[in-house]
Amino acid sequence: MTAPTAIRRLNAADQDFAQHLDHLLSWESVSDDAVNQRVLEIIQAVRVRGDAALVDFTRQFDGLDVASMAELILPRERLELALTRISSEQRAALEKAAERVRVYHERQKQDSWSYTEADGTVLGQKVTPLDRAGLYVPGGKASYPSSVLMNAIPAKVAGVPEVVMVVPTPRGEVNKLVLAAACIAGVDRVFTIGGAQAVAALAYGTESVPPVDKIVGPGNIYVATAKRHVFGKVGIDMIAGPSEILVVCDGQTDPDWIAMDLFSQAEHDEDAQSILVSPDAAFLDRVEQSIERLLPTLEREAIARTSLQGRGALIQVADMAQAIEVANRIAPEHLELSVENPEQYLAQIRHAGAIFMGRYTAEALGDYCAGPNHVLPTSGTARYSSPLGVYDFQKRSSIIHCSADGASELGKVASVLARGESLTAHARSAEYRIKG
Amino acid sequence: MTAPTAIRRLNAADQDFAQHLDHLLSWESVSDDAVNQRVLEIIQAVRVRGDAALVDFTRQFDGLDVASMAELILPRERLELALTRISSEQRAALEKAAERVRVYHERQKQDSWSYTEADGTVLGQKVTPLDRAGLYVPGGKASYPSSVLMNAIPAKVAGVPEVVMVVPTPRGEVNKLVLAAACIAGVDRVFTIGGAQAVAALAYGTESVPPVDKIVGPGNIYVATAKRHVFGKVGIDMIAGPSEILVVCDGQTDPDWIAMDLFSQAEHDEDAQSILVSPDAAFLDRVEQSIERLLPTLEREAIARTSLQGRGALIQVADMAQAIEVANRIAPEHLELSVENPEQYLAQIRHAGAIFMGRYTAEALGDYCAGPNHVLPTSGTARYSSPLGVYDFQKRSSIIHCSADGASELGKVASVLARGESLTAHARSAEYRIKG
Repeated sequence: MTAPTAIRRLNAADQDFAQHLDHLLSWESVSDDAVNQRVLEIIQAVRVRGDAALVDFTRQFDGLDVASMAELILPRERLELALTRISSEQRAALEKAAERVRVYHERQKQDSWSYTEADGTVLGQKVTPLDRAGLYVPGGKASYPSSVLMNAIPAKVAGVPEVVMVVPTPRGEVNKLVLAAACIAGVDRVFTIGGAQAVAALAYGTESVPPVDKIVGPGNIYVATAKRHVFGKVGIDMIAGPSEILVVCDGQTDPDWIAMDLFSQAEHDEDAQSILVSPDAAFLDRVEQSIERLLPTLEREAIARTSLQGRGALIQVADMAQAIEVANRIAPEHLELSVENPEQYLAQIRHAGAIFMGRYTAEALGDYCAGPNHVLPTSGTARYSSPLGVYDFQKRSSIIHCSADGASELGKVASVLARGESLTAHARSAEYRIKG
Repeated sequence: MTAPTAIRRLNAADQDFAQHLDHLLSWESVSDDAVNQRVLEIIQAVRVRGDAALVDFTRQFDGLDVASMAELILPRERLELALTRISSEQRAALEKAAERVRVYHERQKQDSWSYTEADGTVLGQKVTPLDRAGLYVPGGKASYPSSVLMNAIPAKVAGVPEVVMVVPTPRGEVNKLVLAAACIAGVDRVFTIGGAQAVAALAYGTESVPPVDKIVGPGNIYVATAKRHVFGKVGIDMIAGPSEILVVCDGQTDPDWIAMDLFSQAEHDEDAQSILVSPDAAFLDRVEQSIERLLPTLEREAIARTSLQGRGALIQVADMAQAIEVANRIAPEHLELSVENPEQYLAQIRHAGAIFMGRYTAEALGDYCAGPNHVLPTSGTARYSSPLGVYDFQKRSSIIHCSADGASELGKVASVLARGESLTAHARSAEYRIKG
């Protein structure tokens, strides 16, 4: 009996390829009834009992022996203290990353605009930042300082006056890198609460936690379910599925590099998805050998192996044109174009969260410090959605300022259309402004 | 016994004003379990049985005696025919409105951008239109040609190659103004289906209906519930609550004009909300008299009366500063600043879907033909969301192209941060690119 291979092989020329690919990509996240029910109860408790409910749930879920809400508020000084407690190398890396993220996101800022028509009528669009944004940061092992930078900096660049962060500290475990990142990113207030109760507190407010206008940041199934339920009361970012990478390679990149790029996704969690597409069958063999050889050297070998076996694939295609076709079909969160002259393919890429061009641009560089956001659309949602950005923390208001002449002319048009819809009060309101 | 007044009066100076206002604004749309269950069944049936399910549901819900899906496909010639069957006045009004909406939305188009760093690393953002957008148009009485323009034109301006419209034709009733508007707006394909089944068809596709990337447009509770359920598979626009207007008036506008502006919202439906805020108590009296006098002259008197009695209000404030405060608290869908020199207040308005400036700019002008979109955030969601726009039909992909030098420098930073998060495959992937 041979050992199971670490990763499956597919060939786009096979008759049932489309079906295999669909199956490989299929992913539906469902909150079961029990989770939904529990989350609704938690939200209701926080709405009714406020801080007292937060204290109770934090005792219960985070194993923290807290007497009052005051113990769950982290003053700004604690963030500054954390910054002095990390290594100078770590601090320099965080500051470098933050600076690059800030510079990139500055380019996303939208400005208000307006124009004046011949009759003096002014039309425009006013751009305003949100008043207050909430940032959810997971506790424990999945507590990532890079995520704090990626979520908080766009909000601050947008001009949000107050960014409120929540982060659970299960059994009192505080991640000083997370606090240091919060300090660097300019987070204004921090509460050490988590789970559905933290989402509820951000959405509805309590005596201590101010209600925010939008909640962003990753979380477990309880957090994701709570975000779904409070959506409408506040804005939310996307509900992220498992992370994915699609590498398109012409066969000329070091196979060890490509294997490690695939691992960098697979090590996230068992459901993460790493796919390599190449027109070069021999190259796929070499990458497979690299995978087999390097996998045992990974600290997170077990997770990566499960991910690759369950959801990974090496796909052989006829040529680069077919590789791009597969990429557009997948609409991946991360797309590495590990090829010569990647620019030649860029116009044909229609759907991808982020595109990593050329052999040197490892996805990991984008995850931490290249500048663009690492919060990206997953599970094919890049077909219709975008990376997290400054635009997620700004909103627009239309401006219409009709001159007397403009209102008179537009009134005639509006009157005809309103009467065509049998909305006669609309018509009469417009007709009042028509000159006699 | 005196007759009930048509609209309530509130005074911001009253101790319980904030509480009254909260109560007046409170609105939660809930799909009950029965609706949810029915919608889930319909979606499942369409996913499994495709066109056959669409034919069955259309017979059942729309009372149409159709034998096959072919009868539910409207060829483009039918749209062109409709355009010849409406009055020349209506056609001119639709074309004028479409042209103005197009010109305004052209300004919302986003372009791709990039910049090159000193070491040759290129960072950028690529903007791409959606491949295919779906537009839901209600049938029967709430079938509005203006909504067709407002939903389809931004998609076409964004560059969406294919806009697919669905519109039910209950008992065979086809609205020729809607078809004419679809023709003018450049809608590519039309299916005469509606309800949750039409939403399911757009989301998952059938033999005849192509799957789209995003579904926009208003609908009843079944449509809204179905949109919620297919969200994630496709993008959706906002789930709209009842329409609202907030008029802020300095007391110098003709009270009949203001009354009719309030009616133009109240006539939409019983749950619509019309509120007037003024520092001038005598003016509020005059508007109340206008309301009492004009209400009986409305074609849709019963609806408007119910709306004003249930959800309307005339609010007295101390001064314009307090009026603006109330406006920001409400974050209205439509805000009319019916005042002298409205520009002076614009900087202080933080939350509103659309702002109608000055005495001549009736909301109705914006509803039909001023140019900005009439699909606007309701129920206070203007705190964090925007009018429907070209940006809803475009999405962004981040571009990262590191030079060898850039990757080497960024690799060092990424390595430190990745190791700080215990993601060592990330670190090693970055380290491969560090120059030895």
